[in-house]
Amino acid sequence: MKKILFIALFSLALLPASAGHPSLMLTHGGVETMRADRGKVPAFDASITRTLAGADAALAAPIVVPQPRDGGGGYTHERHKLNYYEMVDCGIAWQLTGDERYARRVADMLAAYADLYPTLGFHPVVLSKTPGRIFWQTLNESVWLVHTSMAYDCVYDFMTPAERERVERDLFRPMADFLMNGMEGNRENNKVFNRMHNHATWATSAVGMIGMAMGDSELVRMALYGTDGTGRNGGFLQQLDCLFSPDGYFTEGAYYQRYAIWPFMVFAQCIDHNMPELGIFDYRGGILKKAVSTLLQLAYEGRFMRFNDALEKGYDAQELVYAVNIAYHADPSNKQLLDVAARYQGWVLPSDAGYAVARDIARGEAQPLRFRSAVYRDGRNGDEGGVAVIRSTDPALNSAVTLKATSHGLSHGHYDKLTLAYYDNGSEVLADYGAARWLNIEAKYKGHYTRENRTFAMTTAAHNTLVVDERSHFGGDYAESMKHHSDILFADFSHAEWQAVAARETNACPGVAMQRTVAYVTAPFLQYPLILDLLRAESADEHRYDYPMWYCGQMVSVDFPYEKALGTMETLGDAEGYRHLWKQAWGRNERSGTSCFTWIRGDRFYSLSTATTPESEMVFAQTGANDPDFNLRTETVYMVRERAKRSHTFFSSLETHGTYDLQVEQSDNLTSSCEGVRLLCDTPDHTVALAEYKGGHRVVLCVANRTADADKRHKVKTSEGTFEWTGPCDVRID
Amino acid sequence: MKKILFIALFSLALLPASAGHPSLMLTHGGVETMRADRGKVPAFDASITRTLAGADAALAAPIVVPQPRDGGGGYTHERHKLNYYEMVDCGIAWQLTGDERYARRVADMLAAYADLYPTLGFHPVVLSKTPGRIFWQTLNESVWLVHTSMAYDCVYDFMTPAERERVERDLFRPMADFLMNGMEGNRENNKVFNRMHNHATWATSAVGMIGMAMGDSELVRMALYGTDGTGRNGGFLQQLDCLFSPDGYFTEGAYYQRYAIWPFMVFAQCIDHNMPELGIFDYRGGILKKAVSTLLQLAYEGRFMRFNDALEKGYDAQELVYAVNIAYHADPSNKQLLDVAARYQGWVLPSDAGYAVARDIARGEAQPLRFRSAVYRDGRNGDEGGVAVIRSTDPALNSAVTLKATSHGLSHGHYDKLTLAYYDNGSEVLADYGAARWLNIEAKYKGHYTRENRTFAMTTAAHNTLVVDERSHFGGDYAESMKHHSDILFADFSHAEWQAVAARETNACPGVAMQRTVAYVTAPFLQYPLILDLLRAESADEHRYDYPMWYCGQMVSVDFPYEKALGTMETLGDAEGYRHLWKQAWGRNERSGTSCFTWIRGDRFYSLSTATTPESEMVFAQTGANDPDFNLRTETVYMVRERAKRSHTFFSSLETHGTYDLQVEQSDNLTSSCEGVRLLCDTPDHTVALAEYKGGHRVVLCVANRTADADKRHKVKTSEGTFEWTGPCDVRID
Repeated sequence: MKKILFIALFSLALLPASAGHPSLMLTHGGVETMRADRGKVPAFDASITRTLAGADAALAAPIVVPQPRDGGGGYTHERHKLNYYEMVDCGIAWQLTGDERYARRVADMLAAYADLYPTLGFHPVVLSKTPGRIFWQTLNESVWLVHTSMAYDCVYDFMTPAERERVERDLFRPMADFLMNGMEGNRENNKVFNRMHNHATWATSAVGMIGMAMGDSELVRMALYGTDGTGRNGGFLQQLDCLFSPDGYFTEGAYYQRYAIWPFMVFAQCIDHNMPELGIFDYRGGILKKAVSTLLQLAYEGRFMRFNDALEKGYDAQELVYAVNIAYHADPSNKQLLDVAARYQGWVLPSDAGYAVARDIARGEAQPLRFRSAVYRDGRNGDEGGVAVIRSTDPALNSAVTLKATSHGLSHGHYDKLTLAYYDNGSEVLADYGAARWLNIEAKYKGHYTRENRTFAMTTAAHNTLVVDERSHFGGDYAESMKHHSDILFADFSHAEWQAVAARETNACPGVAMQRTVAYVTAPFLQYPLILDLLRAESADEHRYDYPMWYCGQMVSVDFPYEKALGTMETLGDAEGYRHLWKQAWGRNERSGTSCFTWIRGDRFYSLSTATTPESEMVFAQTGANDPDFNLRTETVYMVRERAKRSHTFFSSLETHGTYDLQVEQSDNLTSSCEGVRLLCDTPDHTVALAEYKGGHRVVLCVANRTADADKRHKVKTSEGTFEWTGPCDVRID
Repeated sequence: MKKILFIALFSLALLPASAGHPSLMLTHGGVETMRADRGKVPAFDASITRTLAGADAALAAPIVVPQPRDGGGGYTHERHKLNYYEMVDCGIAWQLTGDERYARRVADMLAAYADLYPTLGFHPVVLSKTPGRIFWQTLNESVWLVHTSMAYDCVYDFMTPAERERVERDLFRPMADFLMNGMEGNRENNKVFNRMHNHATWATSAVGMIGMAMGDSELVRMALYGTDGTGRNGGFLQQLDCLFSPDGYFTEGAYYQRYAIWPFMVFAQCIDHNMPELGIFDYRGGILKKAVSTLLQLAYEGRFMRFNDALEKGYDAQELVYAVNIAYHADPSNKQLLDVAARYQGWVLPSDAGYAVARDIARGEAQPLRFRSAVYRDGRNGDEGGVAVIRSTDPALNSAVTLKATSHGLSHGHYDKLTLAYYDNGSEVLADYGAARWLNIEAKYKGHYTRENRTFAMTTAAHNTLVVDERSHFGGDYAESMKHHSDILFADFSHAEWQAVAARETNACPGVAMQRTVAYVTAPFLQYPLILDLLRAESADEHRYDYPMWYCGQMVSVDFPYEKALGTMETLGDAEGYRHLWKQAWGRNERSGTSCFTWIRGDRFYSLSTATTPESEMVFAQTGANDPDFNLRTETVYMVRERAKRSHTFFSSLETHGTYDLQVEQSDNLTSSCEGVRLLCDTPDHTVALAEYKGGHRVVLCVANRTADADKRHKVKTSEGTFEWTGPCDVRID
């Protein structure tokens, strides 16, 4: 009720939609300050220099607006992208210098597009359900219009009414209409525009921004409330309600949150400048500020963690410069944002927001970005599982462990329930493959996700979690996976010596309940904190259980005999995911109930000691099989396999150890201290797991499997004593 | 004659050998200045802080001098290494602070060693022909004594005569004797001490330095002139005559030059302090200064180029800190050394030399290290071939091409005649494997070179050069390879548009003469400089010729059809080297006379276009086969193979191209511009090779194969015109 009223008030506020020009990323007052302060704020001066250099380079070359032909990475695709960057640079250059050549360039290029656009049908590259006209997909067309709107806003007052009328008539209005409604032959764009999806964010931002630039309040209204204008069936505000969890988590994961945040922040900036009365940055409890903060937390060494489809991107991506600058402009009390801008980004936006960031960095106001252990809930209402991140309490240790127990994550989601990742010492140590894609490299399937993304990168076997019967979670069925989510059972970050988190998944593998508890333990007798990993599979039927751990670095040793493929190498199997793995080596351990694998990454060693039996099979494998086009990178996995088990619990000690200094050729502590791991008790109600280390030291992990009640007391008798604790979890360090 | 006289004069100068204490790395006057200047030279203060921290950490722990037991990387090995670092730190700390606890620590630890040493037989780890007593090999014992001599020199005046007498009697003299003569059961050390080899440099430095510290001129004499005292059968001075070429190149290559330079510079520093009249840094035309300068040139991005056995080491290795500091102290006119110290090393020696470096950096005297194209001759007399390095003339381009045409390089040499390497954009682009070794990792064959070093890393197939009949050069016969060397035919670095170098090898493959010409060409129509590679094999008999190119990065595409190993992968063959390669893919090109392979490394693309016929076989392979212990890293090679050819010339265009910016998702020029390469003429006398590029551009490489006469005029008629040039080589760019 309250909300409907609110929306009604919004609607009233819409006329007039424009606050004069410029008013999107720049404001009239902002430009005056920037002009006056030239030479006084070094980082902003650098940004202006960069912008002017881009604008001057543009002026030095002829206008090229080619007939659309190529897909991503191809010539015409890249040329049309360059064109919008050029127009933005020139538009800003005009505002900052008053040199008419810049404004003329934008006007002329817009005129060239106004010539071209009415002649265009759909793009000749047919790969998308929503083909564009300038680009192979409408998404790129939205991005084009977001940028071009900024440029148009800058030169609006320079252009003659006749020039404006022409580009609005032949270019902007038809393009806005195309983004909202598609055109004859394909009306899919209308669905996309009103969908709760990041492509819709681009589309609504594009339409809203060109609406503001043109002073067309009707377009702005549809951008905010959807094409039916109700706010209930699409539009930017509903996206803010739906696309982030209450913790600011975007369901596709950090890599796509990076991309999604861009139009959100850019359009929000424009709304804030044009309709400050809407308080867009406070909407839904400041959801956009939360989203930026959460995104920054879901990174390691400034690189986004690999959840779902993910490539190597980080804080230095341009969308993060937008997000961090605009978020700081919206809330200058968050001084940690200045640290991100100063340490990782190195440039600021040539806009009001960028100016504020540069000025306050120069004033010495930056505060170090701090990472904290947290659970980020997934789902619009925060009730669809979440991602847990455990961080070292001592920032100098610089390590992070993640447990992913979310919903599927839309079309970029992976079948990776309860997957674990470990980051330490500046590197990925246990990671998943990420996405199989060579972005913008046309020779690699035109820069799109390759087929191996579906047949390998998305499969469960490509992740550090339980694989049942060699099948992906939900049998790799997207529709089925979309119906479910895992659950975070508990998270306890309150102790100095240990932190722990647990999650459960009961739908991904029919008839098998999975539960994983991960503890990060600081033991005085170990060089670095320890990770205990308890992965339980409970079933009434017999299954094959695989426990793959994708390790980064070089295999050093194992403490059991193995055979290695010498002259011929076969795949690990025919199952999805497995058929892309070369089976490098395999072994069994008949001498001990614990099997240890040590590898080196950077100048540190990692030893995974897992409870095994003589029947357990240990396998080393490497990606690259059944990959006819060299699409896969070479990555390596160590896997413990159990056959014909009803229930099984994988229990491991992951020890980080070793000093390895090649400079002075000194090394120390290169072998694991772990003498054995075993389960003292493992019932549906309780698990008590013991890990023993040199010097008679022990770490015991006690877990209540059925309840996360913090006040519930537990008592378990084992052959090695009785363990009592309160709450879902306890860790004993002796 | 002149030299013998010189040596005779040296001998007279030997008494007394000691200039008081301290006089090895520190001098009395130096210490006074350092004490007076505390707080005035930041980098030197940091060095003192670091030294004092090391000394304080030592004091905080008990003295541990364990019974020798472990090999490299093992506990006792590392403990004994730590002990000498501790003694050095404490000795310097005593000099700088006058705090007696530091001096007492050194005296007490020396006493503990004096207790232990007489009880020791040979080390229990039997792996070396020259086992040590504290360490598994005598080499480490020499290194121990080099360091301990410095510490003893520092605390000499603190220790009582009785204390000194005891450690000299029970520790230093027996150890010096052991280094010179071995002991009952193994006298091999005597041969090593007098050998022309870097192990001998360590041994002579150790004996000479402890001689100076003890004031024993007889030991100093044997260190300088060999155990027979003549200077003709060993000793440090003869090493200076023999172990470097006139250009300061050390025959084992940069990686071992790094290691060898350490004792050379350290002992030279001690000689300079104790016997300045010898002018050791001017000896043989300043060979030590040349050696340091050459070593710095044989690096890329501060990492040493991979010649022969090589791991990842660079300017930041501690031996380079010694070398650069001492070289600067010896010749303060070389301000580029300050740049190396400031940019790559970050710390200076706590010594007179380190003080000079820190002071002059603080004074702003550093000048940028400049790289230049050069040939570094190999062999004592500079007549055993050499290494050619072509550098981009514009330092911003930051690329380097090397052609190795040296002698074998002693026991660390590889069978890699005429091998090529390419470094660009901060990375290795075409490299060889380097050494198969996991230094100091005991689990990997105790940290030694693994067997795969011999069966793979040293083999010709592991390098970017010609393999004839799948056999390594000289059949992999060390003794045979040691008899020969390649020759640099010419090098021309005089042109703005191109640089070129050529080398010949006639002994490595019986009946086959190999010649390689490499040109680095700046063509205005290409984004980056081009490399043309002309590798000729001339023979009267039929052979199989392989042209492997070890590429770093990810395969992007080829322009010919190929098959890839999908479900089973086999080795490339049974031959040495080949049996370690998994055959990933193979193809032929029946459509064109040029076959192009493109890969990506970092944010740049590389396209190798090679002249082929429909019979040529192209292969992709990956290391890892027949590697039962996971000793090999995974590296990748592209290979062009020709069968049953008498003579054959491989001609390639290696084009560097592409802008690939993931941050802003822009890419450009990702496909090769090369439209074809072919030989217009290829006779024993002349080769004229043509490479054609988009836009009708051509680059022609004209080479005189038989003579390097700079004045000789050549005229060659081809179906595409007549080419005339003067000298061994010409490049035409149209």
